[in-house]
Amino acid sequence: MSAARRRLGLEELLSGIAGRQTRALARSISLIEDGDPLRRELIGRLYPQTGRARVIGITGPPGAGKSTIVDRLAHLLRKEDQLVGILAVDPTSPFTGGAILGDRIRMQDLYTDPGVYIRSMATRGAMGGLARATLDAVDLLDAAGFDWILVETVGVGQDEVDVVRCVDSVVVVTLPGLGDDIQAIKAGIMEIADLFVVNKADRDGSERTVRDLEMVLSLVESRAWDPPILKTVASRGEGLAQLLADVRRHQEWLHESGALELRRRSRLRLRVENLLKERVLLAVDELVGLQPALDAAFAAQEDPYVVAERLFGAVKSSPSEVSG
Amino acid sequence: MSAARRRLGLEELLSGIAGRQTRALARSISLIEDGDPLRRELIGRLYPQTGRARVIGITGPPGAGKSTIVDRLAHLLRKEDQLVGILAVDPTSPFTGGAILGDRIRMQDLYTDPGVYIRSMATRGAMGGLARATLDAVDLLDAAGFDWILVETVGVGQDEVDVVRCVDSVVVVTLPGLGDDIQAIKAGIMEIADLFVVNKADRDGSERTVRDLEMVLSLVESRAWDPPILKTVASRGEGLAQLLADVRRHQEWLHESGALELRRRSRLRLRVENLLKERVLLAVDELVGLQPALDAAFAAQEDPYVVAERLFGAVKSSPSEVSG
Repeated sequence: MSAARRRLGLEELLSGIAGRQTRALARSISLIEDGDPLRRELIGRLYPQTGRARVIGITGPPGAGKSTIVDRLAHLLRKEDQLVGILAVDPTSPFTGGAILGDRIRMQDLYTDPGVYIRSMATRGAMGGLARATLDAVDLLDAAGFDWILVETVGVGQDEVDVVRCVDSVVVVTLPGLGDDIQAIKAGIMEIADLFVVNKADRDGSERTVRDLEMVLSLVESRAWDPPILKTVASRGEGLAQLLADVRRHQEWLHESGALELRRRSRLRLRVENLLKERVLLAVDELVGLQPALDAAFAAQEDPYVVAERLFGAVKSSPSEVSG
Repeated sequence: MSAARRRLGLEELLSGIAGRQTRALARSISLIEDGDPLRRELIGRLYPQTGRARVIGITGPPGAGKSTIVDRLAHLLRKEDQLVGILAVDPTSPFTGGAILGDRIRMQDLYTDPGVYIRSMATRGAMGGLARATLDAVDLLDAAGFDWILVETVGVGQDEVDVVRCVDSVVVVTLPGLGDDIQAIKAGIMEIADLFVVNKADRDGSERTVRDLEMVLSLVESRAWDPPILKTVASRGEGLAQLLADVRRHQEWLHESGALELRRRSRLRLRVENLLKERVLLAVDELVGLQPALDAAFAAQEDPYVVAERLFGAVKSSPSEVSG
């Protein structure tokens, strides 16, 4: 594509994004996911209009009912005429892409609502970076004027912990009695949770799960914000209004305490780090070809540290030229 | 520490590793996890002795019984006097570190067996890299003479998918009826599974889970290796001998088909990519200080792409000097 045509494409996309047109949003997020070079200009142009949306992360183990909670929250917000963007992060589908859409069928009324945009984010290719793509997509929806952005993740793995660290409010969803392994997940995510939800609270053991959470919370050193523990039965809509009220209370606290700025600083750091990683791999590939270099190293039985150091040295000593 | 003293420390570690002394193994893996500069020399010295161990990944959702399966496999292997290393990868504990050890108490007989080494791997710090550390630890145990290395992961998230892609044989553990979200996990890991285990097969719905797996497998294009689907009740040891037999059959296939070399090439690629990422972040930090640069960028409301490009340019134009 010529530079002029690309620019025309970019202007069209930007105007579509400003109008929250589904096709423009979908195409832009695909560019972002695919690592298209155009995404740099896109984010550069949108960035000055970001910072207004409330970005809420909803995380927890498989089967906890995150999607249902997200759906219910979206419905509540739509009753107030708030515009809602939903990003369903799905790192478990590195190959098939977007498997999570399968259980989105129940949300058909949200799909047909022009005030809601729903997108599944999946890893595509090693150079991609799910955290990078998701945070770019948050910017995009923010600049497009969505009032709330709900980011749903399974909540396990570094990519997702990265994303969760970068949202404004983190809702951790769990459910009664899922065995000991669940405790390990909770331990990992404990320090970044702003609100806890025990979903499917009509099941046996919900009180015990609440007590377990209270106990683990009591072990964490005291913080300026004390995370509430809520019980919900999302399938019947029970407890969701309270959850939304508490999310709003947390949002107010973020603004008043200055914590919001700290989170946005962390967000910038993570994104720059991820981009630097992508950048060095691209530079190696352009310079010597990553795969040929690796084939030679494999044949010579060189260890990974020796290989990495040599390739990094090659990038450093190459003439500087911007690309990607 | 002076260079001479460091060298002495390294020689001591290497001799301890060669003797499979628990303290030397533990200390070396801590160096690896912490990103200590000594790890480069350590891996460099050990690398020529690697390539002999059978590296088996055991992955699946929380609660599927992975730890119990790993324990049972280790016991079976010990009956044949095979030396067994176990790495429990725990990406869910970025803060608390090693929470998984909590449910390892039941393996006490393995802990006191000198032919077994058990280690929990947790993420430590942004510069760490769980996949990098785990694969370094695999090298270490391989060079130390362990015949089998069992790598246990929750199996969600990019870090873990990375690790799983790098082992020789991938065992995916699932269990009957965990709801729709589990299907999404299975879809993601399907293409890299060499063996499937439906654990807790005495529960209702195990036949259906087997049929579901068969159906999804039938959708994947035919491969040289046809993944078996096994039923186990690991808590009672049922089906474990068959699992071990099938793992061995897969190992034979890997050697005969040449697939083993392909996997080891992928392993090198992933490790070099991860090291390059660490290297560029270290270079930025040494050159301009990552945090001060980010603070200035945040104040100027620069977008992440602009910041990353400038920092990468600074690294490239700085005088070349090996460090880290």
